[in-house]
Amino acid sequence: MIEPKVLKGFRDSLPSQEIARQKLIGKVQSIFRSFGFVPIDTPALEYTEVLLGKGGGETDKQMFRFTDNGGRDVALRFDLTVPLARYVSANYASLSFPFKRYHISKVWRGEKPQKGRFREFIQCDFDIVGADNAQSDFEILLLIHTCLSQMNVGAFKVRVSHRGLLNRFLATMGLESTCPQVLRAIDKLSKIGSEGVKQCLRDEGLSEEAIDGIVKFISIEKDDFGRTLSTLEGMFGNCPEMERLKAIYAMMKSCEIDGDFILDTSITRGLDYYTGIVYETLLLDMPQIGSICSGGRYNNLAGLYTKENLPGVGSCIGLDRLIAALEELGSPLVMDSSYADVMVAKTEDDSGWSQKVAMDLRSRNVKTDCYVGEKSMGQQYAYAQKNGIAYVVTAKDGDRLTAKEIATRKMLENITIDELAALALGSKEER
Amino acid sequence: MIEPKVLKGFRDSLPSQEIARQKLIGKVQSIFRSFGFVPIDTPALEYTEVLLGKGGGETDKQMFRFTDNGGRDVALRFDLTVPLARYVSANYASLSFPFKRYHISKVWRGEKPQKGRFREFIQCDFDIVGADNAQSDFEILLLIHTCLSQMNVGAFKVRVSHRGLLNRFLATMGLESTCPQVLRAIDKLSKIGSEGVKQCLRDEGLSEEAIDGIVKFISIEKDDFGRTLSTLEGMFGNCPEMERLKAIYAMMKSCEIDGDFILDTSITRGLDYYTGIVYETLLLDMPQIGSICSGGRYNNLAGLYTKENLPGVGSCIGLDRLIAALEELGSPLVMDSSYADVMVAKTEDDSGWSQKVAMDLRSRNVKTDCYVGEKSMGQQYAYAQKNGIAYVVTAKDGDRLTAKEIATRKMLENITIDELAALALGSKEER
Repeated sequence: MIEPKVLKGFRDSLPSQEIARQKLIGKVQSIFRSFGFVPIDTPALEYTEVLLGKGGGETDKQMFRFTDNGGRDVALRFDLTVPLARYVSANYASLSFPFKRYHISKVWRGEKPQKGRFREFIQCDFDIVGADNAQSDFEILLLIHTCLSQMNVGAFKVRVSHRGLLNRFLATMGLESTCPQVLRAIDKLSKIGSEGVKQCLRDEGLSEEAIDGIVKFISIEKDDFGRTLSTLEGMFGNCPEMERLKAIYAMMKSCEIDGDFILDTSITRGLDYYTGIVYETLLLDMPQIGSICSGGRYNNLAGLYTKENLPGVGSCIGLDRLIAALEELGSPLVMDSSYADVMVAKTEDDSGWSQKVAMDLRSRNVKTDCYVGEKSMGQQYAYAQKNGIAYVVTAKDGDRLTAKEIATRKMLENITIDELAALALGSKEER
Repeated sequence: MIEPKVLKGFRDSLPSQEIARQKLIGKVQSIFRSFGFVPIDTPALEYTEVLLGKGGGETDKQMFRFTDNGGRDVALRFDLTVPLARYVSANYASLSFPFKRYHISKVWRGEKPQKGRFREFIQCDFDIVGADNAQSDFEILLLIHTCLSQMNVGAFKVRVSHRGLLNRFLATMGLESTCPQVLRAIDKLSKIGSEGVKQCLRDEGLSEEAIDGIVKFISIEKDDFGRTLSTLEGMFGNCPEMERLKAIYAMMKSCEIDGDFILDTSITRGLDYYTGIVYETLLLDMPQIGSICSGGRYNNLAGLYTKENLPGVGSCIGLDRLIAALEELGSPLVMDSSYADVMVAKTEDDSGWSQKVAMDLRSRNVKTDCYVGEKSMGQQYAYAQKNGIAYVVTAKDGDRLTAKEIATRKMLENITIDELAALALGSKEER
């Protein structure tokens, strides 16, 4: 006998987990589609050379990389951004730009497994490629706002900043060259606090004066987007970065969503490749969950594969974190262990009526599981209860049914199929 | 510069292709859910030993197999059936039986690429595990029937047979031992004709008398399920296989779908592991497409991993074939290149009104793409046309919009957002 085990860092998804995941994916898909974003797909396996284009270093070591039977050096993709760059380069002539795409799919990283970190996980990316303007920046922010609003995760703020402002600020102190190190230090703020950031900057050899300046900059008051914008305008005047932020803010106001955004100079996102606005989210009731939707603008996405200049802006939803947040809230989005509303029991007398009743219920939009095992009626009720099924049909006489309401253990006698359908669909709405 | 190429036998999915695929997947998912089937997920990568359990031979050579960084012998899954067997064994205590699951996901096979055959493709499996009775057999057949009916692929027949009948028939001639070879020969009938089948059987060393008997058996009249059933009853009497088929037929009649099924003794499905009913589909207007949904009953699915006896019955939708069939029919299911119904143009005067109009349209269920590029109005119309978007909003004055109807090139002046929404949703229904 072979032990039915999965690889370290990999996992099976049980029905209740997979139902939750699929519901969330269905929900974000329908939001993406309502914005006219289109789906794409790319191979899980690519030439290593293609995938390593941008990465190297840490990424290289984390890849599932091997030589295939044809002697090719291949690897499983470790994100959806590099494949996007390869994809828009390879299919440039077939696509419409600005190209708005979403991609929800698995990626693989051979990193050390730890709590909440897996070697196989789903990424949920959305990007606009081929535009560098306030409209496209804003649209990604609006999408993030729409996703969070429709998920009912409670009050939230989207924290926005612009990489260029920090660059300008460092330039005024003659510290441009330290920018990558400063970015990474600031990015750790929420984990290590401002004293920790100061120590990091000290370790990088910055002067106490510079450090004080930086900490003051990232501590600029951020209660209201418009007020922070004014403060920054006082510092930077009319530079392109301020123009961009002001245009984005005007659109937020026009769409009446400005209250859910803050301009937060402490947001940097660690990754080197961002060049414009950057953002992350904060759930006010669950700050410990961390950002569930982050990203930014990057210019020249596909420079390694094409001469076309392709600026982009995008974001990525952390599905596992979002599920954790919704579980903490007890959201009905992640609470089902079955899709079925009604189960039709298997009885001794069955010449096909149970399948017909199930069929008739389905035609009334009632999701119906026809029990096909060989267990006693008591065990069938237990099956229904375990799977969160509200009603079990146990008999049919003419056009009348007998059904058990699982929650109350009450038998409903002589009800019509329409009455049962109404009950089942009603009980669902209450949830 | 790195060439943005994909591996041989792999492919990118363009937006129009991916939209078609997602629509079909969405449709079959909602059917599976209406039957109370639940989704699962398993890792793409597994221990080679686990995957090879049932396979070996051809399968072995076709696997993407390698040693991971931890020295483990691993491989990408080549189907969803072996992972299902491993999954139910590993998660036995957490699942409800009979376990009805669907699984729509990618599999990888390193076979020689040829027209319509890829090294990475999506399988769409649905199975009931843990029941061996007519109800579960019938439920899979009903699911197949529901899928084909709701896809509007025109008239079809589901061709059903039972492996046990052929075994019994061969036994009457003392030919049980040749069963696997006979099965494989008959399975080629649609490709090589009955003369070809005869030659195959001759090559296996069967006598002309036996060959005539077999060809006669697989040619039994099959216009009407009930009539064929009677013919077979005359031959086999009341054996368990006939009892099973009769019970299934009674359920078909009870659900009034018996006219779409035929009992076809020439259906065997080549795979050795089927033990009960087997079936495939035939599209009457497009027989050349082949079966788009096939399968059968197998007993002892997970014998390699567990001592639990887990009989099963299931099927697999050939998504690529189904898409080919729907394309041939010009089905609207596979004809879109965008989700958007309306596009809001980008004009010089934009202080955010376009994003607000898009937002308001979306709140009326109109999928709306806000153009965020920098092209002229003429090029924006071309973008809309290329993406099958019916209306383009070009201006807003108070609560009145100006919009262009792309198909007629007509400008609609002074319309309200509600009027535009009604037009856009109406034009969609016509499609």
